[in-house]
Amino acid sequence: MRPVTVRNIKIGEGRPKICVPIVEKEKEGILAQASAIAGLPLDMAEWRADWYEDVQDSGKVLDTVRELRKVLGEIPLLFTFRTAAEGGAADIAAEAYAELCAAAARSGYADLIDVEVFTAGVLAQDIVRDVHRAGVKVVASNHDFHKTPPKEELLRRFRHMKALGADIWKIAVMPQSGRDVLTLLDATLTVTEAEDSSPVISMSMAALGAVSRLSGEAFGSSVTFAAAGKASAPGQISVEKMSEMLDILRI
Amino acid sequence: MRPVTVRNIKIGEGRPKICVPIVEKEKEGILAQASAIAGLPLDMAEWRADWYEDVQDSGKVLDTVRELRKVLGEIPLLFTFRTAAEGGAADIAAEAYAELCAAAARSGYADLIDVEVFTAGVLAQDIVRDVHRAGVKVVASNHDFHKTPPKEELLRRFRHMKALGADIWKIAVMPQSGRDVLTLLDATLTVTEAEDSSPVISMSMAALGAVSRLSGEAFGSSVTFAAAGKASAPGQISVEKMSEMLDILRI
Repeated sequence: MRPVTVRNIKIGEGRPKICVPIVEKEKEGILAQASAIAGLPLDMAEWRADWYEDVQDSGKVLDTVRELRKVLGEIPLLFTFRTAAEGGAADIAAEAYAELCAAAARSGYADLIDVEVFTAGVLAQDIVRDVHRAGVKVVASNHDFHKTPPKEELLRRFRHMKALGADIWKIAVMPQSGRDVLTLLDATLTVTEAEDSSPVISMSMAALGAVSRLSGEAFGSSVTFAAAGKASAPGQISVEKMSEMLDILRI
Repeated sequence: MRPVTVRNIKIGEGRPKICVPIVEKEKEGILAQASAIAGLPLDMAEWRADWYEDVQDSGKVLDTVRELRKVLGEIPLLFTFRTAAEGGAADIAAEAYAELCAAAARSGYADLIDVEVFTAGVLAQDIVRDVHRAGVKVVASNHDFHKTPPKEELLRRFRHMKALGADIWKIAVMPQSGRDVLTLLDATLTVTEAEDSSPVISMSMAALGAVSRLSGEAFGSSVTFAAAGKASAPGQISVEKMSEMLDILRI
């Protein structure tokens, strides 16, 4: 696997990186949470812009992401608009989604842009191109909050992310059984065993899948999402506990 | 899976049970460790009799196991002589091994007897019979400190333990890769998905496999070994951390 360097961290090498989502509605709350998490044992932060009350106003979005950067200092920032279709807090038209991702990249304040490559559909390739032109990295993502597709389907999705030229490939799925958790781990390991793989972020959600959030070093997931206050997805563990458990599981 | 009740615990149901090994040479140290662990958040204790300096003297063994029972009160006790061939501290002749297991069972002070069914070979069936006649349960065990056999071989070993009539089936193997860890988890889940399965104890050893010690509730391992002081196998986590992590991973 080829690691990806973002500011001061190398994603895809060593201990899985801890990413803490910022999940607030108002600008003041967003910046307050960023300030609060900056002192925690995290490696990167994600701004979940779909939660922002003014997300339809691109001027306000860029203003907020600029202030977020000031608060976060050198902590790498992942900009994410999670659509309702994939478990997010807001809806958005396809063209507006593409423009938002590109604008966040061009702002220079975000280091990584989450791109829902299946939701984006025919626009996905354009978004990846625009984000890359801005010198920013793409986290291709896909989420299923109801089930876990078969291994072959998960591998097909990772291959699609690779074909689009995404820098990091993320899949989050819901297990119905322990077997589903193993399927997600198996697909993750299979993909990352390839020498030309990009770093993968994968998780099996909810309590049943929580072990997948801890076991990235053994099975190939390079980033784990942990909660500071409000969790952004089921099964997230607090950032302090996560850091302690990743240390206990160091290989 | 059909749970097994031993004193106040039900193995094969709910949170995996935490078993702490007692690994000391002298009787005083053995009893002191038993006394120390009795206050920890554990569910059962294992006496690793292969470490005992007087293990070849059956009178002294029975005397020590009687005193262990006094110290442990209602904490279920697993009696184990781990042979050097399977990672233990001492060697023993096959007949002496069979007699030791049966004597420990007949003493009435141990609740479970570990029986290395492949090391015991042709004597395994006799040992299981003698232990059962004493009204004590059998943990059939198998250990490989060097590698992880293929899934089919692991399943074959579990079937052999079932054929012998063992109450609990234990396999511990060493991983060389993340793939090996998945193989152990996959075999465990496959066995315990069967309605007529006995409880399984399985682990992938060392730091690489440590996640298998935490994930029993998702993948079917019903007991996890945790260390208080000296670990008895590579990858064991402290009993306090283990208890905390199992709670975080509750399903």
